[in-house]
Amino acid sequence: MDEALALASSAGIPVQEVERSALDRLGGQAHHQGLAAEVSGYPYVGLPDLLEVAHREGEPPFLLLLDHLLDPQNLGSLLRSADAAGAHGVVIPDRRASAVTPAAVRASAGAAEHLRVAQVTNLVRAMESLQAQGIWLAGLDMAPEAQEYTEADLGGPLGVVVGGEGPGLGRLVRERCDLLVRLPMRGRVASLNAAMAGAIALYEARRQRTAKICSPHPSTTKAV
Amino acid sequence: MDEALALASSAGIPVQEVERSALDRLGGQAHHQGLAAEVSGYPYVGLPDLLEVAHREGEPPFLLLLDHLLDPQNLGSLLRSADAAGAHGVVIPDRRASAVTPAAVRASAGAAEHLRVAQVTNLVRAMESLQAQGIWLAGLDMAPEAQEYTEADLGGPLGVVVGGEGPGLGRLVRERCDLLVRLPMRGRVASLNAAMAGAIALYEARRQRTAKICSPHPSTTKAV
Repeated sequence: MDEALALASSAGIPVQEVERSALDRLGGQAHHQGLAAEVSGYPYVGLPDLLEVAHREGEPPFLLLLDHLLDPQNLGSLLRSADAAGAHGVVIPDRRASAVTPAAVRASAGAAEHLRVAQVTNLVRAMESLQAQGIWLAGLDMAPEAQEYTEADLGGPLGVVVGGEGPGLGRLVRERCDLLVRLPMRGRVASLNAAMAGAIALYEARRQRTAKICSPHPSTTKAV
Repeated sequence: MDEALALASSAGIPVQEVERSALDRLGGQAHHQGLAAEVSGYPYVGLPDLLEVAHREGEPPFLLLLDHLLDPQNLGSLLRSADAAGAHGVVIPDRRASAVTPAAVRASAGAAEHLRVAQVTNLVRAMESLQAQGIWLAGLDMAPEAQEYTEADLGGPLGVVVGGEGPGLGRLVRERCDLLVRLPMRGRVASLNAAMAGAIALYEARRQRTAKICSPHPSTTKAV
């Protein structure tokens, strides 16, 4: 507390002392530990800003798109995984989905401060715009007709699309994907949660992007 | 509630009505929703039982070992991932570590009911016993000298060893591992949490175990 007050003072930030109950009201469900700061809202960016990051780093774009994920914990966890896997940014819808709330920022363990997030009105239109720029969109889907994720080509310009916790991908979003990929589930429990499945898919894409040493397709291996 | 009572009645399970406060006391921190059941403790198994599962399924053993993981949520989440990735069982220490508590069972989304868990007094001794039976132990470690996880051979009889949330692998456990593997972190946030990192490593092992089509080592690819 003393350190925070000293830092605020040296940075010229005015400090106001209030009753604990006032902080409780301000913080909502957040655990405030006796301190709160007035900050600007989360600085969302536009779609082109995400691609600019990829361009600046000289890499094929690598994005994460979230279709109506409701739980801020899952959102934060996915931001953390996306950042660790080296994604250039994340796209989320502006309605019927968790925004980058304080709970999501906390669950992201700092990733939300670095990774760029674009909030869009229409996810399907955003997908079309990304596709027009040569980006392949791979939707995570548990349907049997989806391709096993390690056999799909995730090594180029890519957006991984993760659905909401309950219903998975919405129909229009699903249909808009260039390919559907499936995580094999060997156990007797039907599913990993959205955050886990997304993290595993992002790291597989990362592996393919950085390795690209041999093809995961048996049929094409011979031709190498 | 009515359905649960009808099921209990048809199964000959005696039902007792109590004050909500009594349930609160019984449930500890668990969210009881007005119902509680008296059940036997979690049925831990012995190390040999885990290997028996692998033997029965005709597969090289695939285990998860946890070194003093403290958070039941992380434990449950890892049980879920291990089950989904097709692991044959999980080994946990019996002290200074989360047991398979009700919170862990809930976080496992049912996986704790299927996957076998062995609770051991001495993790290092359990590791030695597994190694004596030809199982390679790969410790997740963020040290720069650790091998990148996708370049390590995780395709044979394997135990993935995951450390505690804060300190990671204990020194003796770390030294006992046959190899140390590292997840690359491309973002500006230093780490994935233990549950995420474990899930990604388990799925990479699964990929190598089922694919085995091409070598992840550039140097050996040519020899194929």
